[in-house]
Amino acid sequence: YSHIGIHESMIKDRVRTDAYREAIMLHQKFIEGKVVMDVGCGTGILSVFCARAGAKRVYAVDASEIATQASEIVKANNLADKIVVIHGRVEDVDVEEKVDVIISEWMGYMLLYESMLPSVLFARDKWLKPGGLILPSHATLFMAPITNSDRYEGSVDFWCDVYGINMSALVPLAKKFASEEPSIEIVGGENVISWPFVVKHIDCYTFTVEEFKSITTTYKVSSMMLAPIHGFGLWFEVEFNGPAESCSNLSSDSSPLDIIQKKRRRASDSTVVLSTAPEDEPTHWHQTILYFPDPIGVTQDQIIEGSVTITPSEENPRCLNIHLECS
Amino acid sequence: YSHIGIHESMIKDRVRTDAYREAIMLHQKFIEGKVVMDVGCGTGILSVFCARAGAKRVYAVDASEIATQASEIVKANNLADKIVVIHGRVEDVDVEEKVDVIISEWMGYMLLYESMLPSVLFARDKWLKPGGLILPSHATLFMAPITNSDRYEGSVDFWCDVYGINMSALVPLAKKFASEEPSIEIVGGENVISWPFVVKHIDCYTFTVEEFKSITTTYKVSSMMLAPIHGFGLWFEVEFNGPAESCSNLSSDSSPLDIIQKKRRRASDSTVVLSTAPEDEPTHWHQTILYFPDPIGVTQDQIIEGSVTITPSEENPRCLNIHLECS
Repeated sequence: YSHIGIHESMIKDRVRTDAYREAIMLHQKFIEGKVVMDVGCGTGILSVFCARAGAKRVYAVDASEIATQASEIVKANNLADKIVVIHGRVEDVDVEEKVDVIISEWMGYMLLYESMLPSVLFARDKWLKPGGLILPSHATLFMAPITNSDRYEGSVDFWCDVYGINMSALVPLAKKFASEEPSIEIVGGENVISWPFVVKHIDCYTFTVEEFKSITTTYKVSSMMLAPIHGFGLWFEVEFNGPAESCSNLSSDSSPLDIIQKKRRRASDSTVVLSTAPEDEPTHWHQTILYFPDPIGVTQDQIIEGSVTITPSEENPRCLNIHLECS
Repeated sequence: YSHIGIHESMIKDRVRTDAYREAIMLHQKFIEGKVVMDVGCGTGILSVFCARAGAKRVYAVDASEIATQASEIVKANNLADKIVVIHGRVEDVDVEEKVDVIISEWMGYMLLYESMLPSVLFARDKWLKPGGLILPSHATLFMAPITNSDRYEGSVDFWCDVYGINMSALVPLAKKFASEEPSIEIVGGENVISWPFVVKHIDCYTFTVEEFKSITTTYKVSSMMLAPIHGFGLWFEVEFNGPAESCSNLSSDSSPLDIIQKKRRRASDSTVVLSTAPEDEPTHWHQTILYFPDPIGVTQDQIIEGSVTITPSEENPRCLNIHLECS
């Protein structure tokens, strides 16, 4: 994360940065005069937003070398009296007071890949005052079967006739390549062939790191069309609700109607949502697609059911193992 | 090179694949009934083109695992009596006869990065009959100062005002990142601010691997406009001429007029050229840009001169060291 290009692409993701800025302004009354901790502050942009929103003090914590530049940015913007940049892991830092607000942009691809969620939970348990605010407050990981013939035909079927040459000997390699690891790419709402289901809904006020050790859900969705399923797509949204606001939480038991109603309700409420769904404006997270080696044809209204289990890799806890069953 | 995605992007580069196919058809009379060696055959597509053009036998050599699939492709297209796929380095293979034609797609980024040229020269010296054909026959590496304000402003100046925050503490990092290694990207003819100069012209019939050990040239070009120079761009073209055809070779002494006249002459001749120049259709090689940490302003007709030296890295001969002087 000391690589400048990563920060450039994150900050230039306006869907992301605008959502955080709006969330801070929405909660400005709460933040004013309060103490904030920014977990994984990077360039310090969220800390500056909080200081400008009236925070009394912001602890901006980052384990990477970018903390050096964050500190210079704080000085250049005359906020050195408000923002304390700390170069270190949040698990190791020592600050002089408990905090009223924890803000963090911790989400990775498909929410949980290389995510900093465990650090946020650690900071919450150690440093957040009772009744404090966590931004974002809730996160939901969604999944749905997807169809993507353009991509399949372009990288698999392609080999059957290349300049009039039968290169189908390469088809098994192409299928293996396409399906052996998740693909980070942008798909559109038209690629999604059922209502999405909720893999996991995380309430950042109560979620524990133990719950993260194995996330599993069963699903049962109905195809909206006659189409080949090429795999499953994963995406997420996060919300920025206050500690007192009751959030109509989604779970893996939520029906499509629950999800639609929640979307509608949000549109009328004063809440901020950062969505990385295929039907919404693209973000630097794109979507995560688990391609099958071979497509599976479904008819309209056909039931697709199974289970999905996500567990941190034992060798590298920031990586994930995904076990998907589907019939 | 056993990675399927690489072969997909090479074959889908129609500028590249079409040029090879056209070159083979242009020399069909020479190839008919002859013996061909395809150095670094990959999926075997060029070997199949040669066999279809009437070659008596094609030795398709590749050191990577893709040779297994190449062999299957040959069988699937009923060419097993003509194409012999050999899994091994061309430096190690043993074939029963000398060859009339060497074909190879050996060019890397900026022609020479990770290029297979030394293997082609080895094959030529060991296996090519006198008077044999080498495709491509000639390669020219060009260079010119370029201007690219969009890119510079987007990744360097950008930090001066981010959501109203002065983040110029990141400018030194951004400059370092932009200039510490060559960037592979597509620029257009409008980004090139002088006539290009020739860094190296390679006649594949006579070039020796010793000449590759240090390529150096001085240059003196004149800016066509008032503009900031953001760096230098490198690109190449290759030609597919027969052994008897005298090629009006370019060199580092070639004037802009030489280069233009050569382009004109080619358009009327029956020759095939594969160009990766900014003014031509983009290819998977893109262009290679050496960005300066800071732009240098020039006025119209201002002279830009200096020297450039390209040497294979001692640690890894497929990598290159580039030493550029400019005033």
